Amino acid sequence: MTSNAHGARRQRSDATRNVAALLTAAHEAGVDAPAKDITDLAGVGVGTLYRHFPRRSELIAAVLQNEVDDCAQAAAALAASQPPWDALAAWIDRFTAFVGTKRGLAAALHSGDPAFDGLPGRLFEQLVPVLARLLETARADSAVRADITAADILLAVALLCQPTSSEDPQFNEHVIHVFVEGLRHT
Amino acid sequence: MTSNAHGARRQRSDATRNVAALLTAAHEAGVDAPAKDITDLAGVGVGTLYRHFPRRSELIAAVLQNEVDDCAQAAAALAASQPPWDALAAWIDRFTAFVGTKRGLAAALHSGDPAFDGLPGRLFEQLVPVLARLLETARADSAVRADITAADILLAVALLCQPTSSEDPQFNEHVIHVFVEGLRHT
Repeated sequence: MTSNAHGARRQRSDATRNVAALLTAAHEAGVDAPAKDITDLAGVGVGTLYRHFPRRSELIAAVLQNEVDDCAQAAAALAASQPPWDALAAWIDRFTAFVGTKRGLAAALHSGDPAFDGLPGRLFEQLVPVLARLLETARADSAVRADITAADILLAVALLCQPTSSEDPQFNEHVIHVFVEGLRHT
Repeated sequence: MTSNAHGARRQRSDATRNVAALLTAAHEAGVDAPAKDITDLAGVGVGTLYRHFPRRSELIAAVLQNEVDDCAQAAAALAASQPPWDALAAWIDRFTAFVGTKRGLAAALHSGDPAFDGLPGRLFEQLVPVLARLLETARADSAVRADITAADILLAVALLCQPTSSEDPQFNEHVIHVFVEGLRHT
């Protein structure tokens, strides 16, 4: 290997690490946080942020995609470590936590910015087969009612994640739990 | 009784009948139907419509109030004729049908028209005690879980009534049925 090739590989690995740090920091600080808060948390310079994500909408889209990837990957670990019903219920909790922290993003997603074109639909389409597999396993175990699709479960949970006038700060988690209980095969 | 008093009473009774016919017609034709469609269906002249409801928003508010009154009154008949759980589930179906036909009204209700000031909140407050009584009876019968309020059930069902991208035309009724199943005491 030439020292040039070696240097290029190190640059790529630095870039991957910086992007990962920026996505984690943007998730923690909030995607609408000042740029400096995000880069301080990530331990990189502001130039690095703007090199990878010239516009804020590109950062937001990447954070969302990253979180959906995490949510999708969590399914396999849950399925491997728990009975089918428990894995299904735990994954819906995981999805709820993901959607529940995304309320402030609705405005961004509907802003007409091309970085968001079709993004919610793509994220949804990525998670439907993940839930479908958990559902299939739970059905084979006679744990879940037969008459509802993975897509309809995701849509229902997304509706139940919306803000309301409820006085209960745990309203959304609470009614989603009731909905999930209704999925049990009886 | 003088013939004047007799005439005044008949006028009042005509007015009551005309208003009832207009509310029924507006419900059937849709509150955004042309005035003539509504008055033809009600069998009254357009002048009668504008005398009772000078502005469309007043008609819409009256139709909504009328339907909420019907929905509230339905509870007693259901409670008298069915076991507590069945009465509760049937009333939630009734409420779902009411909310489900109101989708097009969201824009009107958020239009800032003073005829709608506080209306959704008042309708909601009128139905909470109605559902609370059905819930109390079903709980006394050990038919329903103890950890959810009437207000939170109404809010959850209202969220689940919203339009989505589901391919199932019965999506809303379907996921509300799952939610209601989750309310059962197990």
